Amino acid sequence: MFTSKNSKFVGNPVRKLDLLAEKLSIEGKKVIKLNTGDPAKYFSPPKTLQKAYIKAIKENKFFYSSILGVKELREEIARRYKKYYNLEVRDERIVVAQGISELINFLNASLIDINDSAILFRPFYPPYLPSLLFFGGKPLFVDFDEEKEWSIDVDILRRRIKNQRKKPKYILLINPNNPTGSVLSKKELEEIVEVAKDFDIFIVSDEIYDELVFNEKFTSICEVAKGIPYAIFNGASKSYVATGLRLGYAIFPEEDKKSNELYKKFVDFASLRLCANTPAQYAFAEALKNEKEHKVFLRKFLKELKQRVKLSTKLANEIDCLSVKEPKAAFYIFPKVDFSKLKIKNDKELVEKLLIKKFVQVVDGSGFGSPKHIRIVTLADKQTLNEAFQRISEFFKEERKLS
Amino acid sequence: MFTSKNSKFVGNPVRKLDLLAEKLSIEGKKVIKLNTGDPAKYFSPPKTLQKAYIKAIKENKFFYSSILGVKELREEIARRYKKYYNLEVRDERIVVAQGISELINFLNASLIDINDSAILFRPFYPPYLPSLLFFGGKPLFVDFDEEKEWSIDVDILRRRIKNQRKKPKYILLINPNNPTGSVLSKKELEEIVEVAKDFDIFIVSDEIYDELVFNEKFTSICEVAKGIPYAIFNGASKSYVATGLRLGYAIFPEEDKKSNELYKKFVDFASLRLCANTPAQYAFAEALKNEKEHKVFLRKFLKELKQRVKLSTKLANEIDCLSVKEPKAAFYIFPKVDFSKLKIKNDKELVEKLLIKKFVQVVDGSGFGSPKHIRIVTLADKQTLNEAFQRISEFFKEERKLS
Repeated sequence: MFTSKNSKFVGNPVRKLDLLAEKLSIEGKKVIKLNTGDPAKYFSPPKTLQKAYIKAIKENKFFYSSILGVKELREEIARRYKKYYNLEVRDERIVVAQGISELINFLNASLIDINDSAILFRPFYPPYLPSLLFFGGKPLFVDFDEEKEWSIDVDILRRRIKNQRKKPKYILLINPNNPTGSVLSKKELEEIVEVAKDFDIFIVSDEIYDELVFNEKFTSICEVAKGIPYAIFNGASKSYVATGLRLGYAIFPEEDKKSNELYKKFVDFASLRLCANTPAQYAFAEALKNEKEHKVFLRKFLKELKQRVKLSTKLANEIDCLSVKEPKAAFYIFPKVDFSKLKIKNDKELVEKLLIKKFVQVVDGSGFGSPKHIRIVTLADKQTLNEAFQRISEFFKEERKLS
Repeated sequence: MFTSKNSKFVGNPVRKLDLLAEKLSIEGKKVIKLNTGDPAKYFSPPKTLQKAYIKAIKENKFFYSSILGVKELREEIARRYKKYYNLEVRDERIVVAQGISELINFLNASLIDINDSAILFRPFYPPYLPSLLFFGGKPLFVDFDEEKEWSIDVDILRRRIKNQRKKPKYILLINPNNPTGSVLSKKELEEIVEVAKDFDIFIVSDEIYDELVFNEKFTSICEVAKGIPYAIFNGASKSYVATGLRLGYAIFPEEDKKSNELYKKFVDFASLRLCANTPAQYAFAEALKNEKEHKVFLRKFLKELKQRVKLSTKLANEIDCLSVKEPKAAFYIFPKVDFSKLKIKNDKELVEKLLIKKFVQVVDGSGFGSPKHIRIVTLADKQTLNEAFQRISEFFKEERKLS
């Protein structure tokens, strides 16, 4: 075989139908894309981000940044965590990356040998799984309970780990969750931390949606994991509407052996690819610094997101074969599909047919580990959402079994 | 072990002493950094690149680009190759990446299983080796002949491949070469292509310095490899002075089975990390389009580079224990060190001591596969180069064996 064995696992379910969608667009079809969680298609970033980006370019900041990332940016990130979560972290313990996507690669490249495992709560953000599989790892799934607002049964987690001959390398949290928009309670987090402590397992918490929570108080892992090894992933993409800048970061607040070892590996992998986009790093630093603007920005942004997610939930539930509860965060809904009423046999067939017949692109639940669901991005404006759900509704009517 | 076995191979020799250099700077030492090939520290990019970058930001192009990269950019890259090298390539066969660094990762991730091998001509650009080793591959080295202007003996290459039970996955060319600044002749390339054809081995040609050749005519692999499977890596970093933007690209011009398979894998890996910095892609597209400006820019830039490389060669050769021939391309010199005359035992000790004692940072040859050399970046202005070589000269005097 010419290509490597494990490269067969690589791919992104969210983008799988992109080429087909593009083809349809070129043919003149009015495709509505509700597949990628890209706020920058519908919203503008805070003004400071734009201005500071332009300033950095005018000042010719075209050079490689330091491996860890621009120091000013790391300082602002450290300050943010102090202010938001009362976390003490030195800026040297922050590694700026080309989006969380790159951090997922660093994570598995750093930790996973063949037959190592990691805990993934299901449903999860897709790229974590192919990346883990590519490095020869195997996922240990623990299911969120949809009936109980996507909560976690920590006893199941505990048993899952106990039953392994070799303990998992890490527990992955995606909190707030993509695709469900659920948020872990402080109590749940404390219980998970307890398990991690008992079994001495590293926690990785992807908190990219930490500011996009509607009514709850969000608890970060750093508020409950003091003294145990963990890392946080976050970035500019979602709450600064800057997906295309490719700016993420990892924080390693603790200085135990595991945290130090993993941090060191992240630096090694970072050094191999030189740096993230330099002027964008300066821009993000300024945007973080301008807290006042961000607060105002966020208030408006959240209000919009909430309306759109609410509307989408309502419209989805009006469709006979879909059911979903209103999410607590982010900009997705993850409705359950009642396939028993449909001629379509599974989620993959569903999303492909929906695109081909009605020109609406959503993502199958399989990529998130939940084949009974589909993920719909709720970022579009009201009119587009109405139009999209109109088409989805027609589609489900047409695909209904004759009884 | 907490971290993965092969992560021990990961790291970048070019950046190894960065933290020490930073520490010395903070202590007030005037460190001269001649370690990273970063023209953006000393030169400005063409104006169009700046202007178009600002325009893209003003237009809020903050969204994810398509997986392959912005179409306008891919079209301009295709046009460039048609114009420069008379290559016919569809823009769909171009994958825009976050620098060649990322392409190196895609390459080995796509092709290398444990015990696979690849041909590396030695000396080579460092990251290719740790990346290959990380994925379990082993390098098959073929040495450039320093005595014959760093040329390649294709018979040695042929024998090297013949002696393997399992044929190598790819032959890597870095042409023009980093660190030697040598350029492969058309005849050499034709002979290498012949070998690749005979053994059915994929060729990867990293041609990031293709425009930075001083007096020779540069031949691209695409001018001699028609009909055989190959890929070209290139990017904005060097000839557009835009290292910090992280923009590279891979081209797969042929449509044979191997090219198609590898191309497909690059797309899969690209989809997993979403995209490269979007506004920078629009900027690079405009800069490529403005050929006239680039021509004028390049003339000046090359003149400067030539002067600096010439001066550095002269100053290096004035030092008793160093010898180097003037490079034909790029902005490095790779002098041979006569350790028999020195108290220092090897290149690694040399570069560390030089930094600690004289505050000049250069890179050991070991990282490039040649422990008898050191690499010195010649991008600094005349005054800085003079100062640096003054210090290097003193250093070698002090480290000379008493005879």
